[in-house]
Amino acid sequence: MRLLSFTRGSDDRRLGIQTEDGIRDLTDALGVTDVGQFLAMGASADVGGELLDPATVTLRAPIARPGKIICVGLNYHDHCREQSLEPPRYPMLFSKFTNAVTDPGAEVTRPIATEKLDLECELGVVIGRRASNIGRGEALDAVFGYTVVNDVTMRDLQAEDRQWLRAKGSDGFAPMGPLVVTADELGDPESLRLRSFVNGEPWQDSSTTEMVFDVATIVAFVSRTITLEPGDVIATGTPAGVGHYQSPPRYLRGGDVMRCEIEGIGSIENPVVDAEPRLDDHAVAVGI
Amino acid sequence: MRLLSFTRGSDDRRLGIQTEDGIRDLTDALGVTDVGQFLAMGASADVGGELLDPATVTLRAPIARPGKIICVGLNYHDHCREQSLEPPRYPMLFSKFTNAVTDPGAEVTRPIATEKLDLECELGVVIGRRASNIGRGEALDAVFGYTVVNDVTMRDLQAEDRQWLRAKGSDGFAPMGPLVVTADELGDPESLRLRSFVNGEPWQDSSTTEMVFDVATIVAFVSRTITLEPGDVIATGTPAGVGHYQSPPRYLRGGDVMRCEIEGIGSIENPVVDAEPRLDDHAVAVGI
Repeated sequence: MRLLSFTRGSDDRRLGIQTEDGIRDLTDALGVTDVGQFLAMGASADVGGELLDPATVTLRAPIARPGKIICVGLNYHDHCREQSLEPPRYPMLFSKFTNAVTDPGAEVTRPIATEKLDLECELGVVIGRRASNIGRGEALDAVFGYTVVNDVTMRDLQAEDRQWLRAKGSDGFAPMGPLVVTADELGDPESLRLRSFVNGEPWQDSSTTEMVFDVATIVAFVSRTITLEPGDVIATGTPAGVGHYQSPPRYLRGGDVMRCEIEGIGSIENPVVDAEPRLDDHAVAVGI
Repeated sequence: MRLLSFTRGSDDRRLGIQTEDGIRDLTDALGVTDVGQFLAMGASADVGGELLDPATVTLRAPIARPGKIICVGLNYHDHCREQSLEPPRYPMLFSKFTNAVTDPGAEVTRPIATEKLDLECELGVVIGRRASNIGRGEALDAVFGYTVVNDVTMRDLQAEDRQWLRAKGSDGFAPMGPLVVTADELGDPESLRLRSFVNGEPWQDSSTTEMVFDVATIVAFVSRTITLEPGDVIATGTPAGVGHYQSPPRYLRGGDVMRCEIEGIGSIENPVVDAEPRLDDHAVAVGI
């Protein structure tokens, strides 16, 4: 099953299912507007609905307001190698809030605070069931499906700030979707090709086989201390090839177009725009 | 104005205002159940409601599901000194999710993962208006009021994990409330006495005069890259006196009772309980 959220014109969001014949609109049957609400109410998609021509809709982020966006750092062997770092001994967790969620096709603004904007293509795990302190063997039962997440990052602030909230959690820094593909339909999440492109040129080209900790381990590990809820999203880390570790390093500017693509799930494309010029240097030594 | 959220028996949460005569129940008049919903709808508390005897209600966290809980690290000069650290050059931001929100009086569970549980009494800023890229001069206009937050922390995981999400964002790690006192009623937020106690014994006793960055600077700084929304909470850092930097260090165990208190706002008390024994050591090297 391939779920998505969409709008038509200026109407509210609607929940759809992608079929061979087009997009079936489930909103009237279910009374929910996105995949997050669908999961929160524990609904079934086995209902009827109007069949729409995909060309007539605008795809949106599948979950407008995830309760949590938990991210895993340094979770690909090839990404650790490009930084000459040992893989971590256990998953390294950080976070974004919902201000970061960005629709497919929507602009991502490069803040004045950064000269080193970068992308990270990541497999996003969409939680389907509440999970607290579960074991690895039960962990995949809590997973509803998978989506594409672009973990947009300001490399200069990532290095300077001690914590990564600002560098990775600023407005618009989590392009997501458009599809959530259910676990049964996707098959093994540990052998998917991930690629990213900037202006059509390949940056990342790797596979989830490079993951240090697999999806089941990550979900179980998070649930040890942080209760997961339906509609939560876990971004499972990025492989080698990001701009910062290319030689010479490359960064994103207004006019660039990012694309992140995962085999079996799809791709998300977002243009970058520059914020209006204004002095920053950490808001001029915090005079603001 | 002093707002709060409460329950009676097993009924749903209700919004109340503390008056000299008791708690006035605003839920029927406004149709909202907590301070977060009140702020999201931009309501006025200038309405009638039943007057209740405070002894008949159970106080709850004032905002059940803050859209964001943003925290500021190392924001007190005396807390920097007790660690022999220079104050940061600009605010250091990290986060908790809503799984951390804990009601006044509710138990906080010490996870198996930690042997070094600690408390941090903090002034919580409650955002009243959407704020994006605002200046310091406008920042206090976005503040609705203030509450008490206990930034519960696992010191061992804070040191071992590179990022602080797990150490500070685990289930129950943000006791909050009970009161939200409006900015006009509280007066200057930069000269309030903060104290914490464990089993009645004083741990922290300092003042918001020790803050490295004041409330206006923090709000403006966050808003540069992260849009603030009504009901968001910013925990503004903790002063000296936490258990970890006492000599010898002291940590919380099941049976201990934490209390955090801020002048003009009130206090919140939470007992600590130990999780059921089970092997951990980071879930036995991530076998889980």
